[in-house]
Amino acid sequence: MLGNFTYENPTKVFFGRGAVENLKEELTRYGKRVMLVYGGGSVKKNGIYDAVREQLAAAGKEVAEIAGVMPNPTIQKLREGITLARAHRADFILAVGGGSCIDYAKALAMSIHEEEDPWEKYFVRFEDPACEVVPVGCVLTMVGTGSEMNAGSVISDPEKKEKRGKAFADARLFPRFAIMDPAYTMTLPRYQMVSGIYDMFNHICEQYFSGIDDNTSDYLAEGLLRSVLHASRIAVRNPQDYEARSNLMWDATWALNTLIAKGKTTDWMVHMLGQAVGGVTNAAHGMTLAAVSPAYYRHILPYGLPKFKRFAEAVWDVDPTGKSDRKIAEEGLQAMETWMDELGLAKNLTELGASEDMIPDMVRGTLILDGGYKVLDAKEIAEIFRESL
Amino acid sequence: MLGNFTYENPTKVFFGRGAVENLKEELTRYGKRVMLVYGGGSVKKNGIYDAVREQLAAAGKEVAEIAGVMPNPTIQKLREGITLARAHRADFILAVGGGSCIDYAKALAMSIHEEEDPWEKYFVRFEDPACEVVPVGCVLTMVGTGSEMNAGSVISDPEKKEKRGKAFADARLFPRFAIMDPAYTMTLPRYQMVSGIYDMFNHICEQYFSGIDDNTSDYLAEGLLRSVLHASRIAVRNPQDYEARSNLMWDATWALNTLIAKGKTTDWMVHMLGQAVGGVTNAAHGMTLAAVSPAYYRHILPYGLPKFKRFAEAVWDVDPTGKSDRKIAEEGLQAMETWMDELGLAKNLTELGASEDMIPDMVRGTLILDGGYKVLDAKEIAEIFRESL
Repeated sequence: MLGNFTYENPTKVFFGRGAVENLKEELTRYGKRVMLVYGGGSVKKNGIYDAVREQLAAAGKEVAEIAGVMPNPTIQKLREGITLARAHRADFILAVGGGSCIDYAKALAMSIHEEEDPWEKYFVRFEDPACEVVPVGCVLTMVGTGSEMNAGSVISDPEKKEKRGKAFADARLFPRFAIMDPAYTMTLPRYQMVSGIYDMFNHICEQYFSGIDDNTSDYLAEGLLRSVLHASRIAVRNPQDYEARSNLMWDATWALNTLIAKGKTTDWMVHMLGQAVGGVTNAAHGMTLAAVSPAYYRHILPYGLPKFKRFAEAVWDVDPTGKSDRKIAEEGLQAMETWMDELGLAKNLTELGASEDMIPDMVRGTLILDGGYKVLDAKEIAEIFRESL
Repeated sequence: MLGNFTYENPTKVFFGRGAVENLKEELTRYGKRVMLVYGGGSVKKNGIYDAVREQLAAAGKEVAEIAGVMPNPTIQKLREGITLARAHRADFILAVGGGSCIDYAKALAMSIHEEEDPWEKYFVRFEDPACEVVPVGCVLTMVGTGSEMNAGSVISDPEKKEKRGKAFADARLFPRFAIMDPAYTMTLPRYQMVSGIYDMFNHICEQYFSGIDDNTSDYLAEGLLRSVLHASRIAVRNPQDYEARSNLMWDATWALNTLIAKGKTTDWMVHMLGQAVGGVTNAAHGMTLAAVSPAYYRHILPYGLPKFKRFAEAVWDVDPTGKSDRKIAEEGLQAMETWMDELGLAKNLTELGASEDMIPDMVRGTLILDGGYKVLDAKEIAEIFRESL
């Protein structure tokens, strides 16, 4: 049954080739003092930085920069940014990059006017901001996290070996706008492309594999999953296929912009397992999810059989004729693994640098959630990690 | 290929049982002088009017009323409303009703501060508003049109026998919020429920049956169509099934809130044909669409064969084994007609009050669009109407 919910998504999206041309006019809605946030040197090499700088100049903005935002943005980097943004008296934050960069910009947006320590308030106590939130906009260059159209933010403390985040409830944390030019994602290495594809695929699964109802969200999730399969198969053969890359970009946005979770419970255990792997290795986020997924889903299949059967038929076109529900469901997971092989995703934790002796640490590092078909205990988690080696 | 587009949908939705309880707090964001817009007496009989009035009183609003907004709201009624709203110096409009009521509220919102004649400016020249637009909110009581989360408005001039409208581009015309309580739709007569179901189903089809690309929008459309089929089959057996009614309510919103048209061309010829029928009869909108759809889709099937084949397999689970594409596609349309029979939809124009001698008028009343698989000429339109009798 569709439970009660509120839906609100204020992000304005400019999508397509040359979308950055909208930046100048869109920026006229916001203040003069812009904090430009980006990562490493790639946006400088591929011309995106220059294109954005040109728009900022044309809009007459006073710009200060926070460069070097890393893949898992740290609380130390956040503190550095807060100091810079306060000194600049920033009244707008523009993030140019992927999910990490946008996550960082949101954390910054709610910290500039906050007197308390942001780590404690937002990433330990998980409170929503009570202070003024500086508006954020973004130019997306990497596909997968969905951060361009949600209020989620994840920040890490490498000293404590902690990675913490949540989907905040405050609509002020959604990017006010997102510039989404699929051509901007084409220079990404293949490894990161497929890692992003599995990330978006799994975002949909995490919301789909929970609950027993046939609600609108489940049907939308199936449509998105089929779109990801179709476009990803084209993109792995030809990463320069604009159509496929543009569909993947839009799929990723809707995979995690709150819509397909409305009215239902959600799981998110694959992400909890994957993050624990991330805590002990340097593996790409999407690859950690890929490595633990098959064992996890095989483990919970008996507890969510009707949904896994539905998944097999509606997403993978498994022919049910003359088969038991269990058999149909298992064929669905087999089809998923075949597709994962086509993409060249990580097949096990060993290739990501994890080993048997790290399992106790990974088990301790796994936050146990209760929205899925089976609430795991420590023994089951260890088993799933072992099977995933 | 996903073409360039802008996506922006600022409507905040409060969904579920008791959603009206959010009204008081949400209204604090807007001005004191509220124009309350509603239709006939049904909202007074079923208690919705009282619940809304209670919230308005608790929020301390000064309320004036425009009652009696009819199913196809007229320009004459709009002029009456403009006078009332100006006299009240309204700074917020609250619509309580279905699509007609919300369409009317939007037309009012962009006319209060407009000096030009609204019919000429908005519904003949189809311009977007340049004046101040009064914010609109809505409490939805009828499902189908999607007006609760888009910027569309349709107004009629019965004297000229014209019904005109469009999806305006101005984001200020989206309702700021929509209160969506599925229980509010349960008192609706069965005839109106199924008419609304076909309306939402066809909204999806109008956007789906155009273009040759496998883009995200097409996959989302298929997910929504499957959701409509599933929930509608439950709802016709038991209209009091809250789960089915709630899914239908949410399906209808996403069927026409701009998402599934993004990056693609659209058709809308069934609506053009249906509106021409509406010009000469008093038939319910959804029923006019139902009566002309089978003949129209059979007519254009050869021109859009790959999409009709896809429709058959992805939406109706037609087994393609050993069949020609044409055969698969035709079986899809047969399955659609079987479902339409299950719902008890109008099967022909005769039962809606149209007859052979009205065909020339209906042909003249049909606006020809060019986004579908075949641009119709007058002879083809006459043929489709004749087959639909």
